[in-house]
Amino acid sequence: MGKKLTTRKEDYSKWYNELVVSANLAENSAVRGCMVIKPYGYAIWEKMQAELDRMFKETGHENAYFPLFVPKSLFEAEEKNAEGFAKECAVVTHYRLKTDPENPSKLIVDPEAKLEEELIVRPTSEAIIWNTYKGWIQSYRDLPILINQWANVVRWEMRTRLFLRTAEFLWQEGHTAHASKTEAIAEAEQMNNIYAQFVENFMGIPVIKGTKSENERFAGAVETYCIEALMQDGKALQAGTSHFLGQNFAKAFDVKFASKEGNLEHVWATSWGVSTRLVGALIMTHSDDQGLVLPPNLAPIQVVIVPIYKGEEQLAQISEVANDLVNKLRNVGVSVKYDDRDTQKPGWKFAQYELQGVPVRIAIGPKDLEKGSVELARRDTLSKEIVPQGEIVEKVKGLMTEIQENLYNRALKYRDEHITEVNSFEEFKEVLNTKGGFISAHWDGTSETELKIKEKTKATIRLIPIEGKKEAGNCVYSGNASPQRVLFAKAY
Amino acid sequence: MGKKLTTRKEDYSKWYNELVVSANLAENSAVRGCMVIKPYGYAIWEKMQAELDRMFKETGHENAYFPLFVPKSLFEAEEKNAEGFAKECAVVTHYRLKTDPENPSKLIVDPEAKLEEELIVRPTSEAIIWNTYKGWIQSYRDLPILINQWANVVRWEMRTRLFLRTAEFLWQEGHTAHASKTEAIAEAEQMNNIYAQFVENFMGIPVIKGTKSENERFAGAVETYCIEALMQDGKALQAGTSHFLGQNFAKAFDVKFASKEGNLEHVWATSWGVSTRLVGALIMTHSDDQGLVLPPNLAPIQVVIVPIYKGEEQLAQISEVANDLVNKLRNVGVSVKYDDRDTQKPGWKFAQYELQGVPVRIAIGPKDLEKGSVELARRDTLSKEIVPQGEIVEKVKGLMTEIQENLYNRALKYRDEHITEVNSFEEFKEVLNTKGGFISAHWDGTSETELKIKEKTKATIRLIPIEGKKEAGNCVYSGNASPQRVLFAKAY
Ligand SMILES: [Zn+2]
Ligand SMILES: [Zn+2]
Repeated sequence: MGKKLTTRKEDYSKWYNELVVSANLAENSAVRGCMVIKPYGYAIWEKMQAELDRMFKETGHENAYFPLFVPKSLFEAEEKNAEGFAKECAVVTHYRLKTDPENPSKLIVDPEAKLEEELIVRPTSEAIIWNTYKGWIQSYRDLPILINQWANVVRWEMRTRLFLRTAEFLWQEGHTAHASKTEAIAEAEQMNNIYAQFVENFMGIPVIKGTKSENERFAGAVETYCIEALMQDGKALQAGTSHFLGQNFAKAFDVKFASKEGNLEHVWATSWGVSTRLVGALIMTHSDDQGLVLPPNLAPIQVVIVPIYKGEEQLAQISEVANDLVNKLRNVGVSVKYDDRDTQKPGWKFAQYELQGVPVRIAIGPKDLEKGSVELARRDTLSKEIVPQGEIVEKVKGLMTEIQENLYNRALKYRDEHITEVNSFEEFKEVLNTKGGFISAHWDGTSETELKIKEKTKATIRLIPIEGKKEAGNCVYSGNASPQRVLFAKAY
Repeated sequence: MGKKLTTRKEDYSKWYNELVVSANLAENSAVRGCMVIKPYGYAIWEKMQAELDRMFKETGHENAYFPLFVPKSLFEAEEKNAEGFAKECAVVTHYRLKTDPENPSKLIVDPEAKLEEELIVRPTSEAIIWNTYKGWIQSYRDLPILINQWANVVRWEMRTRLFLRTAEFLWQEGHTAHASKTEAIAEAEQMNNIYAQFVENFMGIPVIKGTKSENERFAGAVETYCIEALMQDGKALQAGTSHFLGQNFAKAFDVKFASKEGNLEHVWATSWGVSTRLVGALIMTHSDDQGLVLPPNLAPIQVVIVPIYKGEEQLAQISEVANDLVNKLRNVGVSVKYDDRDTQKPGWKFAQYELQGVPVRIAIGPKDLEKGSVELARRDTLSKEIVPQGEIVEKVKGLMTEIQENLYNRALKYRDEHITEVNSFEEFKEVLNTKGGFISAHWDGTSETELKIKEKTKATIRLIPIEGKKEAGNCVYSGNASPQRVLFAKAY
């Protein structure tokens, strides 16, 4: 605490970094590009995990765990996937250290402990998993396999940012195997829909569902479904992806099954994932210049109670009211903290909980004792009101829903205001540079055009929308025919 | 399924390996020494995680996440710790692959992408965490720090076994920082006690609490507290450890705090962990020649219902009773599966659920319909009885407790029968070779004697008991004075 955050207007990127560190969410570590997720940030991730895990299990998925390492020969088996990740692989080459003969207090890599085959630290697990599935699948009776894994993965990024792009990150990766193309596509779509539901309803972040262009598709996928969100600075953020992998991995790892009709066929696959990157999306969707703003669903502390007092006697009286409130709120499932520390002043506490995004703050002072009331402040609107003590529980219960909805609606309004249809490339560039957000434009469907536009504007196709009207038109860049508008944006 | 397991008497080690694979708990992977934890095995681990996590949080700990990698210079900072793990470190030396110029479908490690400093894949996280704590601790107000991490770690073991000793394993590691020695020791003891409670009450495995001899102590610890369990083959298994680290890491990473009195002092530390190894302990404590035996607390499926029928009509009648039971059991918090698959015969299902350790099996056939009863089988005793349908729910609820207790008591009886006091080295060797188990013997307290005994018998000191009588005597090996008996055993 102490000094204020840089404002979003001054420097959005600096604001973000300062917020992440000062709200105790995460920090950089001694390892290039790897972050330390601090307890407060991790508690948010745990809430996300719990809800996703519930949704996955409800739809018939089970958790399992596959090795961290992928032998190089397996890694390279699916060529497009390997090509896509080769440039960002951490590689284990040795399995032992030894004392440095020239400096006995130091260690060196033991050159005699070189691995025969290098191990890649998983950037994603399709290879190791499909090599395993090969042993599990003989007949249609063994299908579908519906597995999810909670894990860490490593992608050696050159430019990293806390939560948004880190060399190591935490995620879940679903890997499913199916007897038919139809079933696999349905699974990929289902998981993209589950991600959309989760991000919208639980995190309060509106998203648009779509598919990726070939350029932006996952390496090794036939189709990538995605959900995209819009951040406050007008840049898009890919919040989740779900891939229909066709038979690519089954062919690379020779995974076949005997069908009901007795034919040997290659298995159909999907994979899907979301990561700690979502914490970045959460921050950049709801927060303000005072700090983090958390939807109640994700708040490790939903309500904080701060006593304002002089002397032990007053504190004792206030604490009686406060502890009663704590119990009543906990009984209705609200997580609440009573901060009666005497090492910090109320003003410091107010600022700290504001910075950390606690949805509701209740202050109780001597006047409140007299009047039987408390002062209640909402983090989302920064508004305050006096509430009779007898009405607090109902009030807070209502606010948990109201704040959740308000944050979603506020973000939705901003997002909808920042989808702009353009009909010329001039307009495209102007909107991108002045207003930002999603640009809805016709595109001729070629990678060539997409790359040209990217080169000239840094905007990429975020998605080809699944829902909504599909009017034909002419490509904003080439003038060639286009079956529907797609959404462009600069992106995280 | 299909062929029977090798019996424990024939070959305990083979029995174990066959059981782990055929009960769908885990299997070896393409990566040397790394396992795949299959959904059924992972579901057991998840139950263990949930309960431990609850116990940690209840005692004031929070979760966080620290990087997978440790830069070599940090790794070597605490010398004893580094020395202890140096020989089993996976080392990342490069961060990119490139296309093999001699074979464009293959990849090679890009020699130009060599890291300036090698990264160790964490075998344990004291180094990276204490390097982080340095930035978090200035004054006594910042203490204690009570953090736990759920993570994967890698120790390059030469001889590996599923769950018991794998190159990569899953665990939790607590890392706490304290203002005083007393407080840190109390924390280390508390966590050892929590492990003991968890393993005994939740997993049904009796343990003995103690401290380690210097030889067996964690590298970098001042004192290692441990819990040791006894497996059915008479070998001991270390089920959890909790370390008082003194100021070793604080000194290595220069972590000091301003005390209340205003002095700058080094911080006191603990660390503590349990791992997927506990799944191995679970198997080897309770299971039998028919397969896995699970205490109800850890069973992913507590009750399975199998219909025995001819024709659709009979199945429909049985299913009505079964589904009613499913609902009633779920309502009282019992996890139940109704296996009405027509692809497998009842006998196959019976054997499969027996192999997978489902605590209670209920079979319903046409005669049961007539009589309003079911056949109920207990996995722990392999006994069967006929139970009126109206009494099933109460019966099952009772059995959940009874089976849990029975497994614990059975294991406790075996364990207690296999603690043998010996008073000469001859007796020591004889008991070790004939009966096995824990050998309670006097020891002179020197590493020299301990190593001699290990060399001659392969038995090590599993622990110096904390509880129980402490009579003095003479070392079984050297004849020198001994303050109390310690427990030796061959160990996993
Ligand atoms: Zn705007
Ligand atoms: Zn015996």
